[in-house]
Amino acid sequence: MAKQDEIQVALLGIGVIGSGVARTLLMKGSAYAEQLGFQLNLRHILERDLHKADEVPVDRGLVSDDPRTVLDDEAVDIVIELLGGERPAYDFIKEALSSGRYVVTANKEVMAKHGLELMALAQEREVDILFEASVGSGTPVIGPLRRDLSANEITSIRAIINGTTNYILTRMSKEGLDFDEALRQAQSLGYAEADPTNDVEGFDAAYKVAILASLAFHTHVQPDDVYREGITSLNARDFRYAQELGYGIKLLAVARMEEDGVDARVHPSFVPREELLANVDGVLNAVQVEGDLLGRVLFQGPGAGPLPTASAIMADLMDAARSVAAARAGRRGDRLPWRAGRPLRMKPVAELTTRYYLRMEVADQPGVLAQIARCFGDHGVSIASVIQKESDEVAQTAELVIMTHVAREESVQKTIEEAGKLAVVSRIGNLLRVES
Amino acid sequence: MAKQDEIQVALLGIGVIGSGVARTLLMKGSAYAEQLGFQLNLRHILERDLHKADEVPVDRGLVSDDPRTVLDDEAVDIVIELLGGERPAYDFIKEALSSGRYVVTANKEVMAKHGLELMALAQEREVDILFEASVGSGTPVIGPLRRDLSANEITSIRAIINGTTNYILTRMSKEGLDFDEALRQAQSLGYAEADPTNDVEGFDAAYKVAILASLAFHTHVQPDDVYREGITSLNARDFRYAQELGYGIKLLAVARMEEDGVDARVHPSFVPREELLANVDGVLNAVQVEGDLLGRVLFQGPGAGPLPTASAIMADLMDAARSVAAARAGRRGDRLPWRAGRPLRMKPVAELTTRYYLRMEVADQPGVLAQIARCFGDHGVSIASVIQKESDEVAQTAELVIMTHVAREESVQKTIEEAGKLAVVSRIGNLLRVES
Repeated sequence: MAKQDEIQVALLGIGVIGSGVARTLLMKGSAYAEQLGFQLNLRHILERDLHKADEVPVDRGLVSDDPRTVLDDEAVDIVIELLGGERPAYDFIKEALSSGRYVVTANKEVMAKHGLELMALAQEREVDILFEASVGSGTPVIGPLRRDLSANEITSIRAIINGTTNYILTRMSKEGLDFDEALRQAQSLGYAEADPTNDVEGFDAAYKVAILASLAFHTHVQPDDVYREGITSLNARDFRYAQELGYGIKLLAVARMEEDGVDARVHPSFVPREELLANVDGVLNAVQVEGDLLGRVLFQGPGAGPLPTASAIMADLMDAARSVAAARAGRRGDRLPWRAGRPLRMKPVAELTTRYYLRMEVADQPGVLAQIARCFGDHGVSIASVIQKESDEVAQTAELVIMTHVAREESVQKTIEEAGKLAVVSRIGNLLRVES
Repeated sequence: MAKQDEIQVALLGIGVIGSGVARTLLMKGSAYAEQLGFQLNLRHILERDLHKADEVPVDRGLVSDDPRTVLDDEAVDIVIELLGGERPAYDFIKEALSSGRYVVTANKEVMAKHGLELMALAQEREVDILFEASVGSGTPVIGPLRRDLSANEITSIRAIINGTTNYILTRMSKEGLDFDEALRQAQSLGYAEADPTNDVEGFDAAYKVAILASLAFHTHVQPDDVYREGITSLNARDFRYAQELGYGIKLLAVARMEEDGVDARVHPSFVPREELLANVDGVLNAVQVEGDLLGRVLFQGPGAGPLPTASAIMADLMDAARSVAAARAGRRGDRLPWRAGRPLRMKPVAELTTRYYLRMEVADQPGVLAQIARCFGDHGVSIASVIQKESDEVAQTAELVIMTHVAREESVQKTIEEAGKLAVVSRIGNLLRVES
């Protein structure tokens, strides 16, 4: 039987993050009990691979590979979901909420795809789903957005929310490495996975910005609504030119509330070097939020790792535990309400207006610039500066680095398409957007 | 009569911040009502100077200069205290809590001196006192410390929490201005008051770090426990030398939990230029918190201004309003408990160990450095570098800039005292501590 002064916790998944949570509970459980006024008791661990538990000093009797053993136990008050991926995590969370349990999760994919539905379900069952760890690991972002900034109309979010790519970009920038070499370094240090697609193609950041935009704008931005470009085509030269021009290159996740819709994007961006965001290096994460009252505020901290993630999960766990205790005492905690999602138009990237950086290889001969400039002018894209970079004497080509004034993405794309057809243009290099 | 679906709010003080709050309530009241599910009704404004209300578009019938009219009205649910200063603010807050009202305040002096007592009183009366606006205006700091970081043992806080001095130091650093000139600029822009003592002597920052340290370490750090030095003796030369040595100069508020006690200080510090804190410029605030699980996290944003402050106050107001509504529905909100203060030893600054920067004027003649170096050696203070700066040919003096290795403050102070007595030392300039 569960004791009255104990809160019963089930942990789903005991991988890297799950074992960090289990260790933290063991190590600091008595300190938490003192804070809360009651014990947090780890009652079940669900794990397909029973041997994984061997590395964590937990009672083997707690570990089961049968979801029913865990989910059917009525004594469980709070379920911590750390399985990752969409299924079966989504089904387990839904079942836990439906049966009146609080859920704490670090699952960005489930929250990005099903957050609205799960929060509505939690509210209906008078419980809550807490997911601070899903964005920025232990760096507080979700909590501040839901509570501390709630008096603001949020107008924009600009974030570095993938530590793997930020590590790679930092190495490319500081050491002049190419992407492949920087990726290998990241892999050897454990900062990138063997298959790095999820990170380097921006899927992970797109999940996270979908969550942030949904909370900030009180709507439901789906991950598929987020325009996405990865960092694999970036080149050491881009970093050299960016530096000369006074910029850093970051994989920014951006969400803006504009009059004609929500603009949500993940792509490598030029960031002015004097901005703090341009100076967030290595595996750190940073989220900048702009609100109508507050102006700009920035949260910066670790974006990954078992202990920082456990920091967020344990804070959510204690929050949920206080509500469980209040409910036992016959009071329902005043949970933060989730404002029903209002449908908002998603702005296609074609409607974006910003400044652009473009690198292209052209024939090293007179009259070339005039042809290219005409092509830009024809589409109403105004050139701010052109720098001719090193020439390849064998191929008789030169490299042009073009910065535009503010232009419309659609026009810029048409310009590039047309410029690419010019006989004097041998290759269109990277097109990068400026975020400031 | 107060309506059941309305929350009744009393505002004490309608100065710069108070009128920002009143305007925000008028402008965004319906948006907040939608979020909350009930109206926030501004029922009273207490203000000694009745003419102040003329500048705010509120019903003049709400304004009273009689505290009894406001505090004796039993319909009031939430009191927003924006009078500033210790008295009568402290008495009004105490009375409001005693009679079962929630209190929202921006008052750093009251919270630093009486926070523990007021929070205990609130808990006893089953209400709460919310004070996010007391540190860093709208930048979330108190909320994250109380909730999001609650699973951590906080080990240190390093903060830039006074916008006025940070503006002055930024001007001194970027434009080579002297303190007096930078202060005049700050005053003409409204960033510094006519009597700037509270800011430039570090009192304001000492209040704020006392609040942060009390929350972080679960104790009660009094403002008088905080070692305090202002910025008035800083000189354009200090900034030049700092830059040459790779540092910025910031008025840092520091609180560390150490084995032998709490180390809490406010003084100008050398900060390595590669740290984000060294790059927080102008009137911005930034708070860096270090915890055992999380590592370091940084919150950065505006540190003053009526709208950013209103952002924090309105978020606290909505938080309190949700609890009032829960209480009316027969449920008591599960407020965050305040852990009873444990008495901790305060470490005197004499026990500090860090690196030091010291500037002194000495006779420009052979053998001087040997005498000074011996003086340092006698007290066990190891010199890391000495740079001899410009000489004054008329006075026949030279300026020495000394960086020490890690040393004990007590020894450094004795060294300086003794060096000051040497015939070859004509003046001891600034002594600054390095924080990294």
